[in-house]
Amino acid sequence: MIPYNKRTSILIKGATHNCRKTDIFIDDGKIQAVGEGIRSEFKSSADFEIDAGGDVLLPGLVNTHTHAAMSLLRGYADDMILFEWLSQKIWPLEAHLNGDDVYWGTRLACLEMIKSGTVAFNDMYFFMDRAADAVEEAGMRACLSHGFIDLFTEEKREAEIKATINLHNHIKSRNNPKLTFATGPHALYTVSPEGLTWCAEYATENDAGIHIHLSETQQEVDDCVKNNGITPAAHLDKYGILTERTVAAHCCYLDDSECELLGKRKTAASHNPASNMKLAGGRAIPYSALKNAGAPVCLGTDGCASNNNLDLFEEMKIAALLQKFTTGDPTILPAAEAIDIASRTGAEALRTGGGTIAPGFAADIILVDRNAICQAPFHNPISNIVYACGGNAVRSVICDGAILMHDREIPGEDAILAGAEAAATSLVARREEEIRNQS
Amino acid sequence: MIPYNKRTSILIKGATHNCRKTDIFIDDGKIQAVGEGIRSEFKSSADFEIDAGGDVLLPGLVNTHTHAAMSLLRGYADDMILFEWLSQKIWPLEAHLNGDDVYWGTRLACLEMIKSGTVAFNDMYFFMDRAADAVEEAGMRACLSHGFIDLFTEEKREAEIKATINLHNHIKSRNNPKLTFATGPHALYTVSPEGLTWCAEYATENDAGIHIHLSETQQEVDDCVKNNGITPAAHLDKYGILTERTVAAHCCYLDDSECELLGKRKTAASHNPASNMKLAGGRAIPYSALKNAGAPVCLGTDGCASNNNLDLFEEMKIAALLQKFTTGDPTILPAAEAIDIASRTGAEALRTGGGTIAPGFAADIILVDRNAICQAPFHNPISNIVYACGGNAVRSVICDGAILMHDREIPGEDAILAGAEAAATSLVARREEEIRNQS
Repeated sequence: MIPYNKRTSILIKGATHNCRKTDIFIDDGKIQAVGEGIRSEFKSSADFEIDAGGDVLLPGLVNTHTHAAMSLLRGYADDMILFEWLSQKIWPLEAHLNGDDVYWGTRLACLEMIKSGTVAFNDMYFFMDRAADAVEEAGMRACLSHGFIDLFTEEKREAEIKATINLHNHIKSRNNPKLTFATGPHALYTVSPEGLTWCAEYATENDAGIHIHLSETQQEVDDCVKNNGITPAAHLDKYGILTERTVAAHCCYLDDSECELLGKRKTAASHNPASNMKLAGGRAIPYSALKNAGAPVCLGTDGCASNNNLDLFEEMKIAALLQKFTTGDPTILPAAEAIDIASRTGAEALRTGGGTIAPGFAADIILVDRNAICQAPFHNPISNIVYACGGNAVRSVICDGAILMHDREIPGEDAILAGAEAAATSLVARREEEIRNQS
Repeated sequence: MIPYNKRTSILIKGATHNCRKTDIFIDDGKIQAVGEGIRSEFKSSADFEIDAGGDVLLPGLVNTHTHAAMSLLRGYADDMILFEWLSQKIWPLEAHLNGDDVYWGTRLACLEMIKSGTVAFNDMYFFMDRAADAVEEAGMRACLSHGFIDLFTEEKREAEIKATINLHNHIKSRNNPKLTFATGPHALYTVSPEGLTWCAEYATENDAGIHIHLSETQQEVDDCVKNNGITPAAHLDKYGILTERTVAAHCCYLDDSECELLGKRKTAASHNPASNMKLAGGRAIPYSALKNAGAPVCLGTDGCASNNNLDLFEEMKIAALLQKFTTGDPTILPAAEAIDIASRTGAEALRTGGGTIAPGFAADIILVDRNAICQAPFHNPISNIVYACGGNAVRSVICDGAILMHDREIPGEDAILAGAEAAATSLVARREEEIRNQS
């Protein structure tokens, strides 16, 4: 019997790590020991053993920008002009979303993320108490934020403040260290200075994260400079949003001074290359400038409506390729760095305690199939993982010392797919009924 | 018993095609009938039945630019400046390649291609008689060309002409309609005008294809204009290379007049976006200009050293994303067109007889898992296939009326992986011995 989704003491034998065979012993949700031949020492302490057969050991991946429940909208509308896509398709459908939809969409998203080696994610959406249900059942880590959009009115601001505090209290009441809270000021063009200030202060008072969109399009930059006389990052900084607990998603159009500002504040930039390309944003994140400024760069998929999957293996490849393509430098963002931004920097930004394979770190780890076609030949498993493999090469996923997937099996997969499919069908039916009633 | 790799009469029941449930009957290597409920008519004629369970029916994909045996070099060297990568890593290793290596590399490549829904490919490399062995054993279609590189010397040209004629005779002697021949003038910067002329004339006399690299880098264009006073496409056209049997790979830097020239000649442009991005080429194929000029655009992965896989599902997504990103237009290269350039246009360029789901076309088809996570929800299977799925969502592959993969099973997979791994290890060992001897 596989002890799915509960903390266990686990001995993994014969994994490949840093080009060597290694064993790893996990207990109390933490990595206790890593090394060749430690199996004899820990064999008697382990409740469960995994024979890795050379599978490649990596830190579990961390998706630092998602709207997980939007997996219900996957494929609903694509290949459209951004504003038409939002105003004619996405927003009208989202207006029909209810808590059950968010639960099923997040369940589907968690299933997809675990299947592709992700252990933690940074999520902004609505009905986040129901997202919390889904995350807990899946056994993942998540930092949850209510998308705070006050549209510069006091009335809406009060409602968003209330919703944010409610979510925070809800998450505290669950007493699950894998679930954390962040304020979620949506973006500078949807949140007033007063709203930004409140989100920053509330997060700081509660040692919570801040999750925001930043500098995704040229228009956002142009409008900000026109309206406020300063760049988007400077505007956010004015209201205290840029902290070392902040994840700023996209960051495509940051200029050098903004990169330096993020570096100074140790604010993490979440790179979402597939979404930026699909929505025709036109600019890639200034990876080198951020790195040189000391700003942590991490990786995210964005929501399924603009990607359309949550596979960080694919995202690592697209990130590395897009940097090379836009800079003309094939040496930028090499394979090992791509894995680093998909794991360690994200784990640090979300303060998961994981992201590194060493004693004392959280037991958030994955095993990638040594015998997958994408690993043949085995010249360089790290290159293979970034440039050749998809997330389907992941065989096992452990989060907080609990097995979430073993040999690609996740309990209840069929029921999750059926539930999500039914929710999506009902959601579209409600929207179609509305269209019929309008015409 | 699954009748792997031999022509069979097959009835597929309940596939999804154009958003409807359909049956399809295959016999004599051709699609005989397609439609809802034709099962009763053809049930007694079928030797084998597949219950598709709603799986999505597509034409088998066609990879129009590969160096298949380079799968042995997957992950051997990455993230390097182009010339250093070639001169310090790729060329020195290739110098040790022998016929057995090409056989095993091509076997591995065919395995990977079938696993990801590809039925035919356009291959240029060396020891192509051994590549032919591998292709025949895999049961795929391939158009094989010897990479013709005369470096502007008569002596090398004579050797290349001989090698090309030998390959052509070898392929004819196999009498396998799935194996075809093309001349393979490598590129205008490696082949003399006399070599280009010979390749063009030999292909035309024998109604064969022509496979060439064109306009991959800015330097190729600059050098051509400087040396010849005309653009690369005009230069090739001068020597008869641009025909409707020609596939020109890359085509990143074509200008409008060159796109019009390819359109006039009906020359196919093979788009290789992952390779262009990874090698930091800096420019995407001018997709709209080629399309508007009437030039067929098809899709290719290039070799595994510069991609690093052969998955056309991933390539469809990257192609669609890269066009959107570079043009700023999210409506360009929508999902259905991405599937079209990965299947129909490639099949037409290689004259496989397939590429379309209709009676009379070659029975080159694939079934994509209806129940894969990437297909949930099922709003739009075509969007899901391009933007959400990887090639691992393919369940079954039929080529020329023979089953190559059923329910993801391919006979002999483990032996192919072991053989390729052993060949790669030996190849690198020979190179390392050479380095030791040199130092």
